[in-house]
Amino acid sequence: MNTSQIKAGIVGATGYTGQELLRLLVKHPAVSIEAVTSRKESGNSVSSLFPNLRGHLDLDFVVPEPSQLESCDIVFFATPNGTAMTMVPSLVEKGVKVIDLSADFRIRDVGVWSQWYGMEHVCPDIVASAIYGLPEVNRELIKGAQVVANPGCYPTAVQLGFLPLVKNGLVDNNRLIADCKSGVSGAGRTAVENFLLCEASESMKAYKIDGHRHLPEITQGLNQVSSEKVSLTFMPHLTPMIRGIQASLYATLVDMSVDLQTLFEDTYKNEPFVDVLEAGLSPDTRSVRGTNNLQLSVCRPQNGDTVVVFAAEDNLVKGAAGQAIQNMNIMFGLNESAGLEILAALP
Amino acid sequence: MNTSQIKAGIVGATGYTGQELLRLLVKHPAVSIEAVTSRKESGNSVSSLFPNLRGHLDLDFVVPEPSQLESCDIVFFATPNGTAMTMVPSLVEKGVKVIDLSADFRIRDVGVWSQWYGMEHVCPDIVASAIYGLPEVNRELIKGAQVVANPGCYPTAVQLGFLPLVKNGLVDNNRLIADCKSGVSGAGRTAVENFLLCEASESMKAYKIDGHRHLPEITQGLNQVSSEKVSLTFMPHLTPMIRGIQASLYATLVDMSVDLQTLFEDTYKNEPFVDVLEAGLSPDTRSVRGTNNLQLSVCRPQNGDTVVVFAAEDNLVKGAAGQAIQNMNIMFGLNESAGLEILAALP
Amino acid sequence: MNTSQIKAGIVGATGYTGQELLRLLVKHPAVSIEAVTSRKESGNSVSSLFPNLRGHLDLDFVVPEPSQLESCDIVFFATPNGTAMTMVPSLVEKGVKVIDLSADFRIRDVGVWSQWYGMEHVCPDIVASAIYGLPEVNRELIKGAQVVANPGCYPTAVQLGFLPLVKNGLVDNNRLIADCKSGVSGAGRTAVENFLLCEASESMKAYKIDGHRHLPEITQGLNQVSSEKVSLTFMPHLTPMIRGIQASLYATLVDMSVDLQTLFEDTYKNEPFVDVLEAGLSPDTRSVRGTNNLQLSVCRPQNGDTVVVFAAEDNLVKGAAGQAIQNMNIMFGLNESAGLEILAALP
Amino acid sequence: MNTSQIKAGIVGATGYTGQELLRLLVKHPAVSIEAVTSRKESGNSVSSLFPNLRGHLDLDFVVPEPSQLESCDIVFFATPNGTAMTMVPSLVEKGVKVIDLSADFRIRDVGVWSQWYGMEHVCPDIVASAIYGLPEVNRELIKGAQVVANPGCYPTAVQLGFLPLVKNGLVDNNRLIADCKSGVSGAGRTAVENFLLCEASESMKAYKIDGHRHLPEITQGLNQVSSEKVSLTFMPHLTPMIRGIQASLYATLVDMSVDLQTLFEDTYKNEPFVDVLEAGLSPDTRSVRGTNNLQLSVCRPQNGDTVVVFAAEDNLVKGAAGQAIQNMNIMFGLNESAGLEILAALP
Repeated sequence: MNTSQIKAGIVGATGYTGQELLRLLVKHPAVSIEAVTSRKESGNSVSSLFPNLRGHLDLDFVVPEPSQLESCDIVFFATPNGTAMTMVPSLVEKGVKVIDLSADFRIRDVGVWSQWYGMEHVCPDIVASAIYGLPEVNRELIKGAQVVANPGCYPTAVQLGFLPLVKNGLVDNNRLIADCKSGVSGAGRTAVENFLLCEASESMKAYKIDGHRHLPEITQGLNQVSSEKVSLTFMPHLTPMIRGIQASLYATLVDMSVDLQTLFEDTYKNEPFVDVLEAGLSPDTRSVRGTNNLQLSVCRPQNGDTVVVFAAEDNLVKGAAGQAIQNMNIMFGLNESAGLEILAALP
Repeated sequence: MNTSQIKAGIVGATGYTGQELLRLLVKHPAVSIEAVTSRKESGNSVSSLFPNLRGHLDLDFVVPEPSQLESCDIVFFATPNGTAMTMVPSLVEKGVKVIDLSADFRIRDVGVWSQWYGMEHVCPDIVASAIYGLPEVNRELIKGAQVVANPGCYPTAVQLGFLPLVKNGLVDNNRLIADCKSGVSGAGRTAVENFLLCEASESMKAYKIDGHRHLPEITQGLNQVSSEKVSLTFMPHLTPMIRGIQASLYATLVDMSVDLQTLFEDTYKNEPFVDVLEAGLSPDTRSVRGTNNLQLSVCRPQNGDTVVVFAAEDNLVKGAAGQAIQNMNIMFGLNESAGLEILAALP
Repeated sequence: MNTSQIKAGIVGATGYTGQELLRLLVKHPAVSIEAVTSRKESGNSVSSLFPNLRGHLDLDFVVPEPSQLESCDIVFFATPNGTAMTMVPSLVEKGVKVIDLSADFRIRDVGVWSQWYGMEHVCPDIVASAIYGLPEVNRELIKGAQVVANPGCYPTAVQLGFLPLVKNGLVDNNRLIADCKSGVSGAGRTAVENFLLCEASESMKAYKIDGHRHLPEITQGLNQVSSEKVSLTFMPHLTPMIRGIQASLYATLVDMSVDLQTLFEDTYKNEPFVDVLEAGLSPDTRSVRGTNNLQLSVCRPQNGDTVVVFAAEDNLVKGAAGQAIQNMNIMFGLNESAGLEILAALP
Repeated sequence: MNTSQIKAGIVGATGYTGQELLRLLVKHPAVSIEAVTSRKESGNSVSSLFPNLRGHLDLDFVVPEPSQLESCDIVFFATPNGTAMTMVPSLVEKGVKVIDLSADFRIRDVGVWSQWYGMEHVCPDIVASAIYGLPEVNRELIKGAQVVANPGCYPTAVQLGFLPLVKNGLVDNNRLIADCKSGVSGAGRTAVENFLLCEASESMKAYKIDGHRHLPEITQGLNQVSSEKVSLTFMPHLTPMIRGIQASLYATLVDMSVDLQTLFEDTYKNEPFVDVLEAGLSPDTRSVRGTNNLQLSVCRPQNGDTVVVFAAEDNLVKGAAGQAIQNMNIMFGLNESAGLEILAALP
């Protein structure tokens, strides 16, 4: 190991986002993995749980100990909601940088957070100083951040899809609709009947139709870039595949004079991980599978005043672990693409 | 064979809708299958192509001969668009009833039809007298029909989902959005690279984003029941599963005083194949797989003025062959559910 | 309800075999479902758990009460291993017929049973009198049975595939190999991480490589029809699909003079649910999906002395619930195919 | 581009092996892609056909021109069988190295080749000098090869699985059985009805039961390492997944004194891409998906004289494009793992 490597710890690495962090960090040229914690699996080798790591990572899971994590330069939390907020304050005190992939630091209004997540927040001061880690919006703030709240999977796709329209006041903010389709890995690696192959394959349905927790996160983000408050109907659907989010975003144009294709291309022309497709195309999730890319396209069906934006990403990469590493790269002044130059394996 | 059985012929039975017609007709208590035509497969046994019919149907494919079809009581066309219109006139002359599962007789304005289907229509007079076979709307007309234009798969789900809202003037007709997800069987049994397992599984995307042929059919149907013209954004998505259409329909309420749950339940309370789910549920496609049922539910997210309707059907049954048999049952005065009392096999 | 209907109870109907029993019994012309038990779901409507039954079955789950089950003519057990043996004795005493879909009564040697199933048997006397419900072997005994031990899914396919060879002494019984591939529903409706869509789809592997519980059942069955003891290598594989078992069976011929195609056709020519394919074909699982059919074919690769038999069945139908109903039909003197005349829905 | 980079050409890059070669070569540290040929797609950008390459490869398909290929250091053929043999002689004359991923140079006996591939061979002299590119067997010969015949997907798994047993004379060579299951990508990117999602998903079957072309290749390879001729029953199965081959190999031990686990571990202990699992495990295909790894395990069920070897690989990587690059690395004296240090993305 190079002594100048960034020392990284991962708390709660037994789920899918943790597994994906490991896949990416193992090959990251500037990172060494110091500690991978799991109460349940402590003492077991990481590669016995995740056989794709055989020969690439020789570490055992450990019980989360402050001492081990405090010697890290950065700690990633891939824990259930409500865990990171109990551990982050002491790490921050020791000067450790944190990227939280759970929702603990995403919502600035802790009252709203409590309402959607069903618990009291234990460190609202850190919420106040945490940076929402969407690089395409907050890159400069991320550079100096101590704690980054890594965005949710749906919020990444929906915000980046609507952003050029909302930021430029081109659409009626009262009538935004996001119809989103996610692969089953979005539900995590939890043994629940609904996500058994026999229940979730060969079927399609909307879920959480009374309100998904990503709604306030998306709304907060769009409000940040908009002069007028947005009202969004966000409808998630469970799709019979492992990875991927496809979002179809609908809005009513209030200004029809703008060339939307040019607008989208210009907005993202310097972004390493946002790819605007040529007019007439729509992105599919498999083309970004396993990668940190978000593909976008935009159209106006029948040349009417409805604009439709299509977004596709891998929910576990740009929607979680990849974006976390993109944030880490920014925080440590590395090449923003380091460790993320991966091509999708097709077919 | 019972001599009072209805004699049925199927033209073009080598695709998925033809195959599904055969599955259902073989078990229909009042039908005998007289002729199954296919130029390509003529002389081969039907069950050698479709092994699910082994032991249930002992017939060979024949070349479509007028004589054989003219002795039928009813002929189903499961042919590519543009074929039925060349054969139906002579059958009508002989008094044979026809149910066309292709699009040849669905659009009353033949100019619009030509524009979307890219050919001239050869029998506009039959278009004028054909009945659009959506039983929930046109049951009385179907009873006396000579030619029934069986609805498309998407149009069935979208029309029946929007119908209670549009018919009662409850929504802004200028802002209808239908985000529809279809299994791959909707593309038919055609050897095209895009629909190979390796291309279509483990991915999700929108397609025909510049306009799908089912758009004018849906619009025509909604206009028929509405006092104000509708403008619809219809966006189809290819979903990695074999069967099923899930539609999420969005509209802006102009009248918030109506109890939507009651409205939907009342609208469909006497319909044998439309099932309105309890409030809070959303239908999944697997629960109607292989059956003629359409499941619906309705909600108002965050109690706003956006209404969302969810519809789920099997695109090959209620969206094609099952609805065709429902129409046949109505045309011949049979129990409307005859041959269609099938339960989905779960899982 | 017809008063002459057979009154059926189902114990433990919340798993996949129970669900499949319900699908088939609901449409059985001679059966009325009296009681569906589940401790966990008692008080809930059956169709709320299994939405494919909406409109077809209006019953609530009940706690298993002896009184309710004792008034049945037949009780099906779709329970985990070890449950039926505790309830069956009292039902037998009351004269109720029983079909047990679990393994409690399949192995005649209770010592062997204990060894593989890890518990003591509580009613070895009923094991002694129970009939192994493989109609193609034991039809006459099933007619008079009080308790039928319904075969396991793999044992049905493997026994019927090897039977013509073993019964006629054509192969070396010391070298039987059964390489079997099962859909994930074979694992039941249990919330276990290994069977999540994200874990089980897009992958293939052998499992229970140190010995699967169906091995002694298969061996017992083959020994019953053979003059020489068999030694079998049985290797199950988890296949990324919902339903279906495909078995490839390998043996060394000791007699090359017999026409194998004719042998297989003659063996099963009167069997309603065993279909021997023409030479050169091999069965696929989708063609029997949802049906009680077992398809077989046989070949001798490169005209050598190795014979290969292919078998395909739906593990939940011929491998479980369908065979149970076939047994019930035999026990009650009904048409053996009653309620089982179902065609696979393709695609 | 570094002038010391190896210049590579790919002929016939529109199929899955060509696409996979591109994915791997684009990231190979020592290779520059000079020419990608396709008659059908010539003039189109490679990334428009394969959107996973967007932003990573800026090249158009070209018609295969000798001049362009002759300036390459190495040319890969990812063409249908029968094409490479017509183009390779002139490349060899110019000193260009060739790796053929088709079957043209795999079978040393051109009579046998003609029989299985249905055509005459046009350059038997090159067959005679070509090296069969299985590094674990022929590494030294590959170093000096001008033309490498890259092994087939099944032959790679089956040969490496049987090798420790056959080479050491531990099994009865007359009774080898290979039951192999392949994902659908093994059939290539060809628009054939059998491989449509609707036909190939949710089903399992054996195919080519009268003899698959990989049989003579496997037999030739095993004979090379064995003192006694082998007789193999090889049975391929189509599995409902995109990538992966799982092979279960059965043989009868003639020597029971050897510790099989140790034998396998010792045989492959220095191999970078063969991973022998701990006793009791069996490999799944997903753990090697997208990688060049072959995972093996070995067991003796019920401690009998039947040995079972399990092998898992990605048919497009270790079974095709990855192995080709491994061969290229050996031919050019590079680190054998260059460009191949990829982790499987799980789930």
